[in-house]
Amino acid sequence: MAMRKQVADKAGVSEATVSRVFSGSEAVKPKTRDRVLQAASELGYVPSELARQFAKRRSGNIGVVLPYLPKVQLFSTYYFSEILGGISEAAREHGADLLLLQRSPDERREYELLFRQRKVGGLIVLGARDGEEEREALLELERNGHPYALVNQRMDGLERRTVEADHLEGSRLATAHLLEQGWSRPAFIGGPPDYSNSRDRLLGYRDAMSAVGADRIEPLVGNYSRKSGLEMAAAAARLIRGGEADALAAANDRMAIGLLQGLRQLGLEAGRDYGLAGYDDSDGARLTQPALTSVSASFDEMGRLAAQLALGELKRPPGKLPPRLVERESSRRRGV
Amino acid sequence: MAMRKQVADKAGVSEATVSRVFSGSEAVKPKTRDRVLQAASELGYVPSELARQFAKRRSGNIGVVLPYLPKVQLFSTYYFSEILGGISEAAREHGADLLLLQRSPDERREYELLFRQRKVGGLIVLGARDGEEEREALLELERNGHPYALVNQRMDGLERRTVEADHLEGSRLATAHLLEQGWSRPAFIGGPPDYSNSRDRLLGYRDAMSAVGADRIEPLVGNYSRKSGLEMAAAAARLIRGGEADALAAANDRMAIGLLQGLRQLGLEAGRDYGLAGYDDSDGARLTQPALTSVSASFDEMGRLAAQLALGELKRPPGKLPPRLVERESSRRRGV
Repeated sequence: MAMRKQVADKAGVSEATVSRVFSGSEAVKPKTRDRVLQAASELGYVPSELARQFAKRRSGNIGVVLPYLPKVQLFSTYYFSEILGGISEAAREHGADLLLLQRSPDERREYELLFRQRKVGGLIVLGARDGEEEREALLELERNGHPYALVNQRMDGLERRTVEADHLEGSRLATAHLLEQGWSRPAFIGGPPDYSNSRDRLLGYRDAMSAVGADRIEPLVGNYSRKSGLEMAAAAARLIRGGEADALAAANDRMAIGLLQGLRQLGLEAGRDYGLAGYDDSDGARLTQPALTSVSASFDEMGRLAAQLALGELKRPPGKLPPRLVERESSRRRGV
Repeated sequence: MAMRKQVADKAGVSEATVSRVFSGSEAVKPKTRDRVLQAASELGYVPSELARQFAKRRSGNIGVVLPYLPKVQLFSTYYFSEILGGISEAAREHGADLLLLQRSPDERREYELLFRQRKVGGLIVLGARDGEEEREALLELERNGHPYALVNQRMDGLERRTVEADHLEGSRLATAHLLEQGWSRPAFIGGPPDYSNSRDRLLGYRDAMSAVGADRIEPLVGNYSRKSGLEMAAAAARLIRGGEADALAAANDRMAIGLLQGLRQLGLEAGRDYGLAGYDDSDGARLTQPALTSVSASFDEMGRLAAQLALGELKRPPGKLPPRLVERESSRRRGV
């Protein structure tokens, strides 16, 4: 990358423009193109073979498969929008456009066909669920040598194509933090177990509880929406008022914010009557009062890595990305 | 559309699946295809000529041009994510995929080429700025009969291709509401004036002030980010403490939320020390405390209309969409 940046700096253009010139895109003004070629020739720049292959032999598009869920505004979901942001940044640097493919669970996984019809030169699957058809479609890509990436979903035999953060560790960090703050009975609020990263987050909670010999509490399960958090508030209030739990570790910020708002309506304030931690470190965590303690999992960086895998520039991801606790007021014990 | 829905219901599939069958997509399982064809034949369903043309003669993709702004997480911006959500819903119903094209201001507008290379069969331009090159590129589409749509940006001679809400009216509603609540000196917090809808929002503020004979206050100008709201807080605090303004009408929610948070740090609370209204009715408006009064402008519906224009299904938009005031606590005078 260093060299492309030098060419870009010398020619006074963006790295994306350098990529476009070398991929033969017609979207560059002739004057700009000349300046880039001049700078490249002076610096002896040769674009990477892989990047050239992508540009020459294949479609210039990266396909991004998204789950289609009626009435869910996917693009307004922090998780997807951040990952898409990272993908699009990396794609742009390589002069690639993004083809968004929304697929509902009942539709055929025609991934190989997308490559054969030259609709895409690389594929990224977001929000995949563990299933035989999904796995078969990806194995077909594997056999045909088509570059692809999975984000936050592991599947048997496809592990080295998965970009993910260490969500077990992230969830462990959040629960351990609540315990350190002096809350002794955190309960876990989880998501649907058919996502591997839902299961990881539950395991992280269990690890943190075992480490201090605390009794686990039966988790509540929502669907990652703020609405499901609001709906679980009554059950959470019973746990807190009954003395069974004194803190909540939610598997994402949306559910945590729903709980914070629902419990407020029931007279319980986060950081006073119970401790609360979310997960994702979304925009919303900065907007509530008290602000929400959360776990940052670098979704943006995940998107970038997925794009590099799909562009064939990276052969395997660099291991699980380390999450980071972001401490705010919702998990503090007032006066402690 | 009614008929497609009937076929879908009878066959027990989604409308998107019906579209896919009739566009000859290979992404439908043979059994499903048979069921759809059976249902269609029983109901005498014939897909619309326009939709068929789109599927047969043209690329199955709708291109969506987005502004490329380094370090701006466009997909995490409520405005763009909601419009994209509406576009993608409508595209799916027609079996079309979305090709996202991020273009920086210095790049050539190669719109016509996208059609010629069959990369897209329709185009939607989001976040366009008023400029000669942009206008020329769109006029070329016009001359060649390619379907396209502009969202929230009017340009000379291209008005009937613009989908927009009546932002002048929306902004007028917000300011008039602040005045009705008993705040007598609302100041306007605007966005960059090279967007036509920034200018419209300023005009709406002025209309509301003129209507009650109130003196206008020189507006503060930010860039629609929460950060710019935070940065304007000191200046806003001076206006409020100096008695020049007692309320703020911000041109979007992000700036309003930045102001709410920045002014809180300076000891001023919305709904107590000053009135506050935002614009967009974003997710964030529901998360702050006090919750933010805002204006809902149906971005989702705009996205749907833009997709219908780009699919050639709609010849011109149905006039400006009417905005709606959403009253919450930030604009109330406590004790009034």
